[in-house]
Amino acid sequence: MAGELFGPIFVPDPVREAVSDRAWLQAMLDFEAALAVAEARARVIPLQAAEAIGAACRADRFDAGRIARKGRGSGNPAAPLASALRAALPDEAARWVHWGATSQDVLDTAAMLVARRALDLVLADLDGVATACARLADAHRATPMAGRTLLQQAVPTTFGLKAAGWLVAVSEATDRLRAIQRERLAVELGGAAGTLSALGDQGPHVLALLAEELGLAEPVVPWHTARGRVAELGAELALTAGVLAKIALDVVLLAQTEVGEVAEAAGGGSSAMPHKRNPVAATLVRACAPQVQAQAGVLVAAMAQEHERAAGAWHSEWEALSRALELTGGAGARAREMVEGLRIDPERMRANLDATGGLLMAEHVMVVLTEKVGGPEASRLVEAAASRARDEGLSLGDALATDPGVELSDDEIRRALDPESYLGAADAFVQRALDLVGWRP
Amino acid sequence: MAGELFGPIFVPDPVREAVSDRAWLQAMLDFEAALAVAEARARVIPLQAAEAIGAACRADRFDAGRIARKGRGSGNPAAPLASALRAALPDEAARWVHWGATSQDVLDTAAMLVARRALDLVLADLDGVATACARLADAHRATPMAGRTLLQQAVPTTFGLKAAGWLVAVSEATDRLRAIQRERLAVELGGAAGTLSALGDQGPHVLALLAEELGLAEPVVPWHTARGRVAELGAELALTAGVLAKIALDVVLLAQTEVGEVAEAAGGGSSAMPHKRNPVAATLVRACAPQVQAQAGVLVAAMAQEHERAAGAWHSEWEALSRALELTGGAGARAREMVEGLRIDPERMRANLDATGGLLMAEHVMVVLTEKVGGPEASRLVEAAASRARDEGLSLGDALATDPGVELSDDEIRRALDPESYLGAADAFVQRALDLVGWRP
Amino acid sequence: MAGELFGPIFVPDPVREAVSDRAWLQAMLDFEAALAVAEARARVIPLQAAEAIGAACRADRFDAGRIARKGRGSGNPAAPLASALRAALPDEAARWVHWGATSQDVLDTAAMLVARRALDLVLADLDGVATACARLADAHRATPMAGRTLLQQAVPTTFGLKAAGWLVAVSEATDRLRAIQRERLAVELGGAAGTLSALGDQGPHVLALLAEELGLAEPVVPWHTARGRVAELGAELALTAGVLAKIALDVVLLAQTEVGEVAEAAGGGSSAMPHKRNPVAATLVRACAPQVQAQAGVLVAAMAQEHERAAGAWHSEWEALSRALELTGGAGARAREMVEGLRIDPERMRANLDATGGLLMAEHVMVVLTEKVGGPEASRLVEAAASRARDEGLSLGDALATDPGVELSDDEIRRALDPESYLGAADAFVQRALDLVGWRP
Amino acid sequence: MAGELFGPIFVPDPVREAVSDRAWLQAMLDFEAALAVAEARARVIPLQAAEAIGAACRADRFDAGRIARKGRGSGNPAAPLASALRAALPDEAARWVHWGATSQDVLDTAAMLVARRALDLVLADLDGVATACARLADAHRATPMAGRTLLQQAVPTTFGLKAAGWLVAVSEATDRLRAIQRERLAVELGGAAGTLSALGDQGPHVLALLAEELGLAEPVVPWHTARGRVAELGAELALTAGVLAKIALDVVLLAQTEVGEVAEAAGGGSSAMPHKRNPVAATLVRACAPQVQAQAGVLVAAMAQEHERAAGAWHSEWEALSRALELTGGAGARAREMVEGLRIDPERMRANLDATGGLLMAEHVMVVLTEKVGGPEASRLVEAAASRARDEGLSLGDALATDPGVELSDDEIRRALDPESYLGAADAFVQRALDLVGWRP
Repeated sequence: MAGELFGPIFVPDPVREAVSDRAWLQAMLDFEAALAVAEARARVIPLQAAEAIGAACRADRFDAGRIARKGRGSGNPAAPLASALRAALPDEAARWVHWGATSQDVLDTAAMLVARRALDLVLADLDGVATACARLADAHRATPMAGRTLLQQAVPTTFGLKAAGWLVAVSEATDRLRAIQRERLAVELGGAAGTLSALGDQGPHVLALLAEELGLAEPVVPWHTARGRVAELGAELALTAGVLAKIALDVVLLAQTEVGEVAEAAGGGSSAMPHKRNPVAATLVRACAPQVQAQAGVLVAAMAQEHERAAGAWHSEWEALSRALELTGGAGARAREMVEGLRIDPERMRANLDATGGLLMAEHVMVVLTEKVGGPEASRLVEAAASRARDEGLSLGDALATDPGVELSDDEIRRALDPESYLGAADAFVQRALDLVGWRP
Repeated sequence: MAGELFGPIFVPDPVREAVSDRAWLQAMLDFEAALAVAEARARVIPLQAAEAIGAACRADRFDAGRIARKGRGSGNPAAPLASALRAALPDEAARWVHWGATSQDVLDTAAMLVARRALDLVLADLDGVATACARLADAHRATPMAGRTLLQQAVPTTFGLKAAGWLVAVSEATDRLRAIQRERLAVELGGAAGTLSALGDQGPHVLALLAEELGLAEPVVPWHTARGRVAELGAELALTAGVLAKIALDVVLLAQTEVGEVAEAAGGGSSAMPHKRNPVAATLVRACAPQVQAQAGVLVAAMAQEHERAAGAWHSEWEALSRALELTGGAGARAREMVEGLRIDPERMRANLDATGGLLMAEHVMVVLTEKVGGPEASRLVEAAASRARDEGLSLGDALATDPGVELSDDEIRRALDPESYLGAADAFVQRALDLVGWRP
Repeated sequence: MAGELFGPIFVPDPVREAVSDRAWLQAMLDFEAALAVAEARARVIPLQAAEAIGAACRADRFDAGRIARKGRGSGNPAAPLASALRAALPDEAARWVHWGATSQDVLDTAAMLVARRALDLVLADLDGVATACARLADAHRATPMAGRTLLQQAVPTTFGLKAAGWLVAVSEATDRLRAIQRERLAVELGGAAGTLSALGDQGPHVLALLAEELGLAEPVVPWHTARGRVAELGAELALTAGVLAKIALDVVLLAQTEVGEVAEAAGGGSSAMPHKRNPVAATLVRACAPQVQAQAGVLVAAMAQEHERAAGAWHSEWEALSRALELTGGAGARAREMVEGLRIDPERMRANLDATGGLLMAEHVMVVLTEKVGGPEASRLVEAAASRARDEGLSLGDALATDPGVELSDDEIRRALDPESYLGAADAFVQRALDLVGWRP
Repeated sequence: MAGELFGPIFVPDPVREAVSDRAWLQAMLDFEAALAVAEARARVIPLQAAEAIGAACRADRFDAGRIARKGRGSGNPAAPLASALRAALPDEAARWVHWGATSQDVLDTAAMLVARRALDLVLADLDGVATACARLADAHRATPMAGRTLLQQAVPTTFGLKAAGWLVAVSEATDRLRAIQRERLAVELGGAAGTLSALGDQGPHVLALLAEELGLAEPVVPWHTARGRVAELGAELALTAGVLAKIALDVVLLAQTEVGEVAEAAGGGSSAMPHKRNPVAATLVRACAPQVQAQAGVLVAAMAQEHERAAGAWHSEWEALSRALELTGGAGARAREMVEGLRIDPERMRANLDATGGLLMAEHVMVVLTEKVGGPEASRLVEAAASRARDEGLSLGDALATDPGVELSDDEIRRALDPESYLGAADAFVQRALDLVGWRP
């Protein structure tokens, strides 16, 4: 993010730290250190050199700004970092720094390490969101509210089912993101053009050892210009942000002054507008999502990379990936805060259900009447009653009760107009969602 | 695509047909037919009605344009299609058409059916691309060529390794797309607001039967505004297009007049420009990819859908999904044609390898010299020789041979400058890629 | 659009026709005819040839599908169209068809002609939107409603000012789009590589005459790979769609069941849900906008075109441009329908203003009290009253009246709580907006 | 950008500073100071208060991080900045800070100020690019090179015409960007919901004075949710980046080892790859462009803002705008460096022109022969000669000279095959481009 003025509003500090200069520097140094160990294990370089290199690979010993300025000529910070690392070591170790590797190996592997660590934080918040959704779904499985299509009240549903829908979406996104973290974050080691020629016949062996050292997947072949791993990560972050944006959109809409069915715990107004309960967390989730998706678009478009190293598309990834991770982290943290603190107002939900004077239950009345008089006649009767209700300012119940053609008792009418009588599979669906995540209250 | 004037240039006819009006209409009717069967099996509607409905559900009986024009008022073609279907049936069957379902159920399930059928075609072409890549990788595992970074010759690689990189990328994308097709294409059935209330307590049962009838996955809960399934499909199509765009980019670059290492089989010039061998298939792949990715962007952004049915975002999916499927199909078909027919010119690759007078092998000379005189001195000697070579118009070999400080025999110099001596793990990586896909020549 | 099943729902027939195969074919033929005339005027080709060519250039004589299929080899339909045109002419005229031009000249100039004609339709609807907004702004300059920030009621505004905001935005977008149409739609004529070499020294002269014939701007140099003109058009369409999307978003929100301040004229429910007044036009505007913006993204990204003709980026423009024009046309037409038919409910606006029991006027009370007791004390008093109002279920007026610390008469309180007393410059701003467009009722 | 590790590689320090925390803070404070002055001039607040406020509005007195952390609750940093400013002032001035304004007024106006200052830097570099292009166009108006379509040599052109194409594109983009800077950067002042109600009847007057104080345009109505100004700026930045990306793409392609027609002044290899002349500046331009375009996409999509202040879309603009400005600045600076230092190799251009053995001139031979034997026969002869040339390894000249059917003298053949004889309007177009910008060498 832009820095200190906007960043902390959207993104928690630990996430910001996870994609910071320092985190990238340390990840690049972790690559250099692990490469040396792997090469020492493969007897490509001396063990002492590897130990010395490992000891020197601490980010706080290096100056990111100085390295970047030296990196302007080569177009990336990996070469000047290797130089700075060599300069910090005795000759006998220095000569083995970065052995057989190329700048892209450093940066690509560092990107994977940065992503892995950032994803830990993101996933923790997503788990928090899922848990809070499960709690809401369970608690409100019998809380009726208006189901709304095209933002118009349609038929009743429950708040529990709404939260169950959020839950399933978050759970699926989290599963996919976790699979990416587990399976697709891989070490990159290819040397100048992907052949690892400087390592002679030890290339694949060193590659395997390096993957082991760093706990990353071992790729089948170097992926210097096969950017699926980066783009898939971007795409999953975009999908995750999309899931959170949907929840935030529902919250913002439910929190409207005229709807008032939910409120954020922390929502508050100013003294000048004491009635406002701004859905700030939801607002910030909604601000993060399109930015994540735009960054993912950069990563996906960047898949068209030339030959053995791209002239530009690769360089566009670093910022895009950092921002996508960071803003997904922001969206996740703010969504968690939003859902965990969400205040539900079942009375307001009930009041809103009644706002149309029962018209919301017209479909149910029609179902009930269809059993008695068949579909066409039922349809005609309901339309007539609804029309009278609107024209004469009656409730639908009164209109039905005073229509001699409607052969329903008062009790039948009352039951037909009761939202709780027309919730269908809402409760069953809630249970299926809770079962999916193994929810135990 | 725009229609007949541009469409056939990019997209094969079967793919165009798979996302056509007719295909969508039939998919919508398949939903209505299967719903009737499922409901009959669940004893919600009479069996005879289901049979009559099923018999009527043939796309060629309906007029897409007429339905669309009637759909302007409701904003989608599902309601007028149900009306037209009812009108084609006797009353006793007509009344059970679309029973308990909503327009979104029809269109969402239809989208999944359209996607499944289109993916069959897309995946067949992707398999063709993979097979052709595997054949190239195997055939050219020992064909040296220049590895290029930032479009500059760097060190040697092989064409086999380049093709192996394409192969792994296509294979991974295909696996992911196939997983989507298998696991994430699901039936949608929720009724007016996701509760299936018009089906009483039979909702989940009907849902399960409907999934069985259509061979689609059964979702945990209705996904009317949880659009992960659609957006994930879009994202995977975008990733697939990105993989193909990378291959096409390499082909376009290798086919340049000044490079001339590959040519498309069908590439041809006009009589006015008889020397041109336009890489037309690669060009069209590159034209499709950003369009697929843009449509995927629409689908991912559309995840923020309001409440129980969105007022706009949902409606933006139909065209975006059709175009994303179609243009991925175009990219796949054209990529297959491109790779299957690709003509490789190993002699030109060799000639280009020699274009820098051996400078391309400088890294290898440095490795060889380092073993004799250590890194710093090796570096100094190579730089001096390279510098003389450039200044005096010598080959690097001559510059090394005439430098008294370089203690290498002519034979050692010759071997150090031989690209085939410096291919590292290229062959091993090719084998790993072929093993991944179980390639048998 | 996908064809007949979805297209007519979003886009009016004339707009669909304006970007149809037939329209593109005719535009390509218009280029060929005008080129022949220009070259005859410059005495490059015989006048009779030009006349014969002109007479043959009628789209209904050519088969788009056949041309496209022949265009698969060259990657575009211009060469096969020229062949078909030659085949329709006697040899003496045929040999001068397409003289000195290249395929890109045909398609780029045709794109400009298609755009010009489509923009006429788009702009007519935008003018209609602006006029309807002006009418609403004028009629409702004194209709108070809640101003809402973060979807929370904040302070009062007027519906007139809201409509004035729409008006200014539409007016500005229309001006920009009209400027593009007037100044940036230019003829393209460069020949094989932009030098017009086949025209000898007559190139610039023919270029000027061609521009004159077609009524398009004459570019300084051929723009075959300087794609600003296409991308700017795309960008302006995206901005226009964005303006319309904002209006549609406001309408959808105001039309919510719980808000009910506006309704679309044509909004209607089904018999099963008689209470619904679906904002369908607004919904479709919102569906078009992100699609237009995605296509614009394709056009802007396609600016990076290689050398004298791009291998892919150019080919991605045709579909993207057609869709962007068409969907902007759809958004414009639906927005016009939406605004022209919009039903305003001032009573509901007033009722919603009162929904917070006067809390909406707290800022005004604070302004009034500040004049009496200074800011800090005013702030303290209002907070206390608001707090009591919420806790004890009072209106703000009652809370103020019963707070001994608040030294305001009942009349002063009543005036302080009157929304109409706190509309600031709303009316003045409405007038400025009306003056901008020269509105006369 | 991500910070110190990547930022300086892409973006010059002054541009980074222009969109930094400090720059935003100062711009926000400039708003507060100018608002106070405007209100004092309108006699809304005391002059002494305005003077005290103005004196306190210095960014270095405030802590961005602390303000941001306090801004988490309200979702933006404007309210805590106003609080911090009040805290730094005596009560009599403090109470007039931010009088009648809302947070969005502060941030929107600040965004305009930040943009104006950043655009000064961007435009200076774009002017540098244009000047360097003009110099190249003029110097190389007679330097023949291969024109390339689909990356295949087509017919000759000149490097001067290529540079002229770049020049016109940059010049047009610069004009548009400058128009945005001059006309569309406007003050925002609307108060809580756009009515300026807290300013009584002085709202429009204060607005005009504020615009005067800040040197920004005065809008017709407040534009809090009419985001054309921000989105247009984003769109123009995207278009500018697209123009630069095209130039950089050409440079990267011309600098390829196998083409070698241009080189960047600063391009250099490592000691291990002494032959490489990496086009680093072009690479970085190409990396910036898609990121700028993605941010512009965020801004355009963000135009759909709810009512009188958006719940999310507005908040997504700050980062997107800063990054778009910054990365356009990076692209501009790097493009300037690239073009100003570009080394042209006319000999290599000539050698590449000859690479096809004269086939590149086949179109010209056909033109020459057409005058003698008519088009069909000319076409047949050229195809036959070209075919023999390829099959027998002849040059086209030798194939023509030894074909008895070709009635051209050796001298006529030589001239027909001379690239300089077939440059058409290249020179004239160069002159038109130079005239456009008033170039004087």
